[in-house]
Amino acid sequence: MNTFVLYNYFRSSASYRVRIALNLKQIRYDYKAIHLINNGGEQHSAEYGRLNPSHDVPTLVHNGKPIGQSVAIIEYLDEVETYQPLFPKDPYKRALIRQACEIVNSGVQPLGNLRPLAELSKRFGATDEQKRDWSIHWIDYGFRTLENFLVNHAGKFSFGDEVTAADCFVMAQLYAAERFNLSLEPYPTLKRIHETCSKIEAFRNAHPDYQPDSPKKT
Amino acid sequence: MNTFVLYNYFRSSASYRVRIALNLKQIRYDYKAIHLINNGGEQHSAEYGRLNPSHDVPTLVHNGKPIGQSVAIIEYLDEVETYQPLFPKDPYKRALIRQACEIVNSGVQPLGNLRPLAELSKRFGATDEQKRDWSIHWIDYGFRTLENFLVNHAGKFSFGDEVTAADCFVMAQLYAAERFNLSLEPYPTLKRIHETCSKIEAFRNAHPDYQPDSPKKT
Repeated sequence: MNTFVLYNYFRSSASYRVRIALNLKQIRYDYKAIHLINNGGEQHSAEYGRLNPSHDVPTLVHNGKPIGQSVAIIEYLDEVETYQPLFPKDPYKRALIRQACEIVNSGVQPLGNLRPLAELSKRFGATDEQKRDWSIHWIDYGFRTLENFLVNHAGKFSFGDEVTAADCFVMAQLYAAERFNLSLEPYPTLKRIHETCSKIEAFRNAHPDYQPDSPKKT
Repeated sequence: MNTFVLYNYFRSSASYRVRIALNLKQIRYDYKAIHLINNGGEQHSAEYGRLNPSHDVPTLVHNGKPIGQSVAIIEYLDEVETYQPLFPKDPYKRALIRQACEIVNSGVQPLGNLRPLAELSKRFGATDEQKRDWSIHWIDYGFRTLENFLVNHAGKFSFGDEVTAADCFVMAQLYAAERFNLSLEPYPTLKRIHETCSKIEAFRNAHPDYQPDSPKKT
């Protein structure tokens, strides 16, 4: 039995970030699927709420102790598993990597989440097309911000030629481009990072299409 | 001359978080006001964009080196200044504190920011009252989530009887209750944390009303 259990959803980008980090660190874990839409959203159950008061995914349970929020989980993994560090030792470099993570995590991803999209429909009668446009607006905004930031720091990866926590966040956000069929041509640095990471097994195996709860999985 | 410079805006809750952390650590800093509304928003200038690619506040500059995003800044401050630690040593406790920070930072605060509110007007013709209702919806959602989480962890502060980074985020978010005249009665744990922190000079001096760019400052 694994001591790590990840409650998550194949398509959730916050879940995808954590799966990448677990794979990079070669931590084996039990995959528990929480379907965000079926059964009215399995994350809303009282039972799940005891693990995660935000009723969202992912939740990592380690030795029976739950942690929510992808940033908190990835920092924790880096503190308890020294294999393949996701942050360097220098405090300023760590800060820049955290800044990149947060441009995704708090800067743009929350705006395209299921919850605000549902409120747009409820309050403003937003159509599917209007919700799609809203999502794409924030994705493009985030990509432009990341491009402007990472062009000064990236090598093969987001920061130089070593993988860091930033790559977990950037790659999960780039999945939004796949979902909405957006070209990465306007963001050459992000395109390069995407090409690098896509070749690495830890990233590939974390991709939404290859999870046990993905309908694409064969 | 101080080696720390904080580019910020009195009313910005992310700025407020960082001011609390700086004060708790007794770090002196130069206050540079960036007005988010006057002059079309001073954060949009090309000059400011060189410090912060997200064109948002706050930005901390330490020895000439800029850092954006309040989470990255507060983690950095805790790494370079050991006086008054904002995180304990135990990895699991650190994770729970980061989880609380992120419930505010990525879970709810981004939804009430100036940028999405402007898009609500532009795309859906949202009135001031509709934008106010939208903001209050997410504030209440965040407070309920925090209450459910912190009721299991709080003492006088968010985590036990020692101040942590979580208090910087919780107090800055509670300022939203002041702005919108919301009662804290439905959130007794948050109310207790608010009472504790409000008595402490480091928190009081960081309050939006007492900043150099506040119109209320006398």
